[in-house]
Amino acid sequence: MKTFDKYESAVRSYSRGWPTVFEKSKGYKLWDIDGKEYIDFFAGAGTLNYGHNNDDMQTRIIEYIRNNGIIHSLDMGTTPRKEFLERFQEVILKPRNLDYKIMFPGPTGTNSVESALKIARKVTGRDTVISFTNAFHGMTIGSLSISGNSSKRNGAGIPLHHGVFMPFDDYAENQDSITYIEKFLEDQGSGVALPAAIILETVQGEGGINAARMEWLKKIADICERWDILLIVDDIQAGCGRTGTFFSFEPAGIKPDIVCLSKSIGGIGLPMAITLIKPEYDQWSPGEHNGTFRGNNLAFIAATEALKFWETDKFGKEVQQKGEFLSEAVKSIIKKFPELHGTARGRGLMQGIAVGIDGLSDKICAEAFDRGLILETSGPNGEVVKFLPPLIIDEKGLREGLDVLEESIEHVLQTK
Amino acid sequence: MKTFDKYESAVRSYSRGWPTVFEKSKGYKLWDIDGKEYIDFFAGAGTLNYGHNNDDMQTRIIEYIRNNGIIHSLDMGTTPRKEFLERFQEVILKPRNLDYKIMFPGPTGTNSVESALKIARKVTGRDTVISFTNAFHGMTIGSLSISGNSSKRNGAGIPLHHGVFMPFDDYAENQDSITYIEKFLEDQGSGVALPAAIILETVQGEGGINAARMEWLKKIADICERWDILLIVDDIQAGCGRTGTFFSFEPAGIKPDIVCLSKSIGGIGLPMAITLIKPEYDQWSPGEHNGTFRGNNLAFIAATEALKFWETDKFGKEVQQKGEFLSEAVKSIIKKFPELHGTARGRGLMQGIAVGIDGLSDKICAEAFDRGLILETSGPNGEVVKFLPPLIIDEKGLREGLDVLEESIEHVLQTK
Amino acid sequence: MKTFDKYESAVRSYSRGWPTVFEKSKGYKLWDIDGKEYIDFFAGAGTLNYGHNNDDMQTRIIEYIRNNGIIHSLDMGTTPRKEFLERFQEVILKPRNLDYKIMFPGPTGTNSVESALKIARKVTGRDTVISFTNAFHGMTIGSLSISGNSSKRNGAGIPLHHGVFMPFDDYAENQDSITYIEKFLEDQGSGVALPAAIILETVQGEGGINAARMEWLKKIADICERWDILLIVDDIQAGCGRTGTFFSFEPAGIKPDIVCLSKSIGGIGLPMAITLIKPEYDQWSPGEHNGTFRGNNLAFIAATEALKFWETDKFGKEVQQKGEFLSEAVKSIIKKFPELHGTARGRGLMQGIAVGIDGLSDKICAEAFDRGLILETSGPNGEVVKFLPPLIIDEKGLREGLDVLEESIEHVLQTK
Amino acid sequence: MKTFDKYESAVRSYSRGWPTVFEKSKGYKLWDIDGKEYIDFFAGAGTLNYGHNNDDMQTRIIEYIRNNGIIHSLDMGTTPRKEFLERFQEVILKPRNLDYKIMFPGPTGTNSVESALKIARKVTGRDTVISFTNAFHGMTIGSLSISGNSSKRNGAGIPLHHGVFMPFDDYAENQDSITYIEKFLEDQGSGVALPAAIILETVQGEGGINAARMEWLKKIADICERWDILLIVDDIQAGCGRTGTFFSFEPAGIKPDIVCLSKSIGGIGLPMAITLIKPEYDQWSPGEHNGTFRGNNLAFIAATEALKFWETDKFGKEVQQKGEFLSEAVKSIIKKFPELHGTARGRGLMQGIAVGIDGLSDKICAEAFDRGLILETSGPNGEVVKFLPPLIIDEKGLREGLDVLEESIEHVLQTK
Repeated sequence: MKTFDKYESAVRSYSRGWPTVFEKSKGYKLWDIDGKEYIDFFAGAGTLNYGHNNDDMQTRIIEYIRNNGIIHSLDMGTTPRKEFLERFQEVILKPRNLDYKIMFPGPTGTNSVESALKIARKVTGRDTVISFTNAFHGMTIGSLSISGNSSKRNGAGIPLHHGVFMPFDDYAENQDSITYIEKFLEDQGSGVALPAAIILETVQGEGGINAARMEWLKKIADICERWDILLIVDDIQAGCGRTGTFFSFEPAGIKPDIVCLSKSIGGIGLPMAITLIKPEYDQWSPGEHNGTFRGNNLAFIAATEALKFWETDKFGKEVQQKGEFLSEAVKSIIKKFPELHGTARGRGLMQGIAVGIDGLSDKICAEAFDRGLILETSGPNGEVVKFLPPLIIDEKGLREGLDVLEESIEHVLQTK
Repeated sequence: MKTFDKYESAVRSYSRGWPTVFEKSKGYKLWDIDGKEYIDFFAGAGTLNYGHNNDDMQTRIIEYIRNNGIIHSLDMGTTPRKEFLERFQEVILKPRNLDYKIMFPGPTGTNSVESALKIARKVTGRDTVISFTNAFHGMTIGSLSISGNSSKRNGAGIPLHHGVFMPFDDYAENQDSITYIEKFLEDQGSGVALPAAIILETVQGEGGINAARMEWLKKIADICERWDILLIVDDIQAGCGRTGTFFSFEPAGIKPDIVCLSKSIGGIGLPMAITLIKPEYDQWSPGEHNGTFRGNNLAFIAATEALKFWETDKFGKEVQQKGEFLSEAVKSIIKKFPELHGTARGRGLMQGIAVGIDGLSDKICAEAFDRGLILETSGPNGEVVKFLPPLIIDEKGLREGLDVLEESIEHVLQTK
Repeated sequence: MKTFDKYESAVRSYSRGWPTVFEKSKGYKLWDIDGKEYIDFFAGAGTLNYGHNNDDMQTRIIEYIRNNGIIHSLDMGTTPRKEFLERFQEVILKPRNLDYKIMFPGPTGTNSVESALKIARKVTGRDTVISFTNAFHGMTIGSLSISGNSSKRNGAGIPLHHGVFMPFDDYAENQDSITYIEKFLEDQGSGVALPAAIILETVQGEGGINAARMEWLKKIADICERWDILLIVDDIQAGCGRTGTFFSFEPAGIKPDIVCLSKSIGGIGLPMAITLIKPEYDQWSPGEHNGTFRGNNLAFIAATEALKFWETDKFGKEVQQKGEFLSEAVKSIIKKFPELHGTARGRGLMQGIAVGIDGLSDKICAEAFDRGLILETSGPNGEVVKFLPPLIIDEKGLREGLDVLEESIEHVLQTK
Repeated sequence: MKTFDKYESAVRSYSRGWPTVFEKSKGYKLWDIDGKEYIDFFAGAGTLNYGHNNDDMQTRIIEYIRNNGIIHSLDMGTTPRKEFLERFQEVILKPRNLDYKIMFPGPTGTNSVESALKIARKVTGRDTVISFTNAFHGMTIGSLSISGNSSKRNGAGIPLHHGVFMPFDDYAENQDSITYIEKFLEDQGSGVALPAAIILETVQGEGGINAARMEWLKKIADICERWDILLIVDDIQAGCGRTGTFFSFEPAGIKPDIVCLSKSIGGIGLPMAITLIKPEYDQWSPGEHNGTFRGNNLAFIAATEALKFWETDKFGKEVQQKGEFLSEAVKSIIKKFPELHGTARGRGLMQGIAVGIDGLSDKICAEAFDRGLILETSGPNGEVVKFLPPLIIDEKGLREGLDVLEESIEHVLQTK
């Protein structure tokens, strides 16, 4: 670990909470250089939905490299890009009756969000974007402007503009966020301009695993339609099956104008992102947004391979079942440890326990790491213990991880 | 090509200029699906300095994948990250007597620039950043704010602030940019606030292959020291050996406070970026800047392998020699075709011909593509034919490419 | 009227609604060049609380001019400035147990608001200012940024920043604005930064005569204290006795950190404004805010004379009584004309009827003008008929004006 | 003076440099409460071009008040407004072959500038405004954004945007500002957007009495025409005859699109401002910009009276002659006191001596005040001793003032 202390910037964070050097990984497990095994309830912050080192993805990538396949291609035409475009259309969009143009905005989530904001502003000629309390959309200035976390915002070193924060579903006690939003939009004196877009995560990953109700999502979509506002769903963390359907918004029956995908879209953990744009809004000039790493062909190969999980509805249903199993387990933990003052959060395999005692969630995660379970906290004060296992985990794996968690909680509560 | 037309966003650009599907690549050559061969004078916009599909890099990556090495790791400790940190220190920083902390800001150039701006603002408590006419630093809002290109700026859909543009070296006829910059800084009534940083590319890649003189760079560094301004060198395109030394600023004898690297730092074309920060300015809080793809281990492996090129000064000297060869060739072309009204630009293996006739440079590049040579234009009006071959190209390859270029020019001039 | 059409800018507004040339005025009456008499329920938009052409003010001003008293003095020491400062201290601040430094920020309300924003930002080192839906604070960019009206905001031609709009008291149906504000401030992920200040009008003049409850004002003051936020009361229209006490916030028992006064502070309608700042926040450097017309000595003379109204509590009590009389009249009108779908608004001599039928309020005011009564509309859609008579009006004058109003309503409803 | 210390805000400035209480004034003289007489080389910072307490203006104002003339009228029609509009047209605009709509933007200079910026942005649909180094346009956020002084800018407490500062005429040694401006506008990669407007003072009053050459003004006007940029001349301090013609730009033969006037336009020192807008750009909606004190009728009366000075060319010629006399005197002082390292600045009766020794100019003005001469410093570091006598001063008055000045310089240099 000395190497990191000595040579790496003070900004590093995960290597502080999990002070070891990881070496191998497969499925829902990791091993460090000392051979210690860890169960993964973190999944690369949602990047490893299909688990670590999927065999088929490995095989296809190795084969491609061996054949001197072109690795870096900006947005030039390549075979892997072509295949991904075709398969994504066939496996994901067509069956869901969705019509989107696919944009490669650069290989990170924040690239996708920045591109979404640009095109929404261009298409509408407006500058304001409404986002929500505890939203997290990325760390570059455009995305950060619509993210809620104050310490991350302060890190910008400049005031952040053009974003208006509205209360997310079930935000302030006994208040209805929809009433509030509609009033601000209707009232010509509200001080809030008609926005280019409303952007939201259906389940706020960094903001505390806050899951919006489907009914609330529908109302937001209605507001967008009524006022001719573009609806952007940032499905970077909650998408790619995390909640039990490929897109997290499917159960709400809505069709966003723009969808941002990254993290697990790349299948095996390689940097990749796409922005889906309804054809009528795909009004870009060529090259108006670009980036050097738009053509990460190894990622395209793994991404195409990953789509196989979605050829039938089997995988999604399994995720839903495991989600229910996890829900029950969470409830039972909250009941078993009333000292946590815990609240259940989330849906699908994106869940958490909001701990009512300051600082406790951090201690639980640290103890769990020592005992071989990797999970992190979330929320404005890191108050939520967050469960984000790879979707391919089985019940045994879930059970094992939850057992370690219970032991960790027990230990932490005893030594308090 | 129909796939791209049908499914991909209108924003795509390279697949328009080079309308084919690329399949394989090795060294300084590419082949498309029809087996047609191309000489590469483009190098992934500076990402493939070490050529396509370097054998050793391929071998090491395949081996790592086969061993189920951890692929995606955010900023957790992993063996490839550790090795890269140590080797970069040993091979690059120590021999050059440079002391920097290494930050992984996310895997694209613009991530690095955004992180540089944040830390410069945090450290100084100031918000303004001085950049230069025709600068290009990236497409996310922070980086775009300090980039000069008006059509890219307009794409933001919002006014861009906090950047002040000063004239780059040799900008306006008979004017001295240093005099101008100093006056603006000295004068308490100039309207330009003391900036957090001055950011520059030593050779402006997208802005037209404008190479600053070493003497000018020194003066800028002096200004930064005198006024306690941080000097940021964006060496994303000009660094990693492109101009004949690892860092493009080495011949000027300056030591920037922050250096941004991306593109070829990843060795084989996989997304990667680092930000180098003088230890006294590495004042980040943990996680104050972050990103999902900070831990692209396959890129770390190739990056570490690439450092072998720099273990002696042989590689750099070869690049310089090839640079001189290219210089001579450029001069001879300009002389041979006076109808171009051409001007030579750049240094090392980052050169170009600014063509004095509107629209001609585009036609030359299109003709060259048909004849099996890949190169692109640069500059505010795309007026510069840009030569950016892989650094590992040999004289034969250079000669071959230049021959195609000459034929293309001849053809274009005849059919005008 | 041709002169105005021909020579004056299209921006003129009042001369359109009241198409005549006014010549004389006294007390609560005006006369135009044709000798037609008007009752004034407008009072210069709140500037003529003491009526037109008060005898004593006239006498003192004429005397001063005759003696070659210095008229324009920036912030040089002059006798009228000295006298105003002393009398304001003695008559207004001391009896109310208020301790403020008095700033002359330039002679208009927006100058005062801009100065308040500057000092609040300087003192706290923060940039955000919370204002409220339907707030109106002025037309220069700083003040406009915290004003809600969308058409006035659009007039800026640039996006307006640094202001966050919170719901005013009783804004959205069944929602509690205090709960929202507290939640946004408490939550570190709300996206709303800790503000430098909260600025409010106790009764929103331009925004629709929305009167906050005293209890709500107290809660806002508590929030400010708890979070160390400066409380700015913009008392430009509601102050100087308009609601029955010199400051409109007196009944709430709060002590704002900064108070903006203009309009009637100048006594007779001459341009003047002051900013009251708690001594601990008066951290200006000399000249850090300035302006050419800070020293309008004729205004100081009238202003000092006006303070005589406040030497006892008689005047305030009379205003309160007249306010109650007006309240009753408003209720009775609403009852008498159910077709108006009217709602009563305001308090003291700052009241209005919100008319539920689009466009009707404008017609009523136009008809009233024809019949010799001057009043204007207010609110985001001009839906409120606004009563703002000079405070010195007697019951007979009120009664007369209200009679004309009733006739006008009757006429408009009949001819609909 | 205790009253000011005790009750007035720390922001006060002139009462610090001139620590007395002024009581009377006439022509070019003032008297304080102790009867001490002062010669006025300050003229209310350019507000009292016609001197203090002009007899005819006094008479007309008193008469109007006595007749209960309407004093405060927003933008309602009144007789004084009508007369001013007509006379301004007849005496000023028509003879100069100028066609402008007249806007009353509120009674201060900064109101006029803010209105000019708004309409320029509305008309062009652009947001950037180019202003110049050492420009001063006012203290509200819109005007301050285009003003150069760093301490005044810092006072804003927020970053100031949308303004780009170009070098004023003869700014940096051996550099040509026109070449720079043209290059920045021509180059699509310069980072400077096509602006809505270029705003300038022909002689920079607060910025150090920098007088642009007529030839430079013409070139700027040409640039504006070529690029379809609106030219705004802020003639608030240099206009109303200060340089020997009513508008300061007349000798350049240019016709700005918008002209801002305030200060001396009100004749006797009462707050007033107007914005002149070419009819084709007068695209305001009614009330899109407004303000409570747009109708200062006492100021209109004095303003109309002041126009009598311009009915023939006699007055202007006298000012020019006095300007030449002052020029000679300035040269002779600079020659007589080489220790000043003085440079002559300005034109007409707007001149100054830039003193090359830090802090000396302040001492000279302080000494002059003690000796009965009122003048102030100007420039980014207060390095310019500024001469701004009322235009009605005679040679005797000028001579007297200059004698006091010479004595003061002598005294200060001796006691150094």
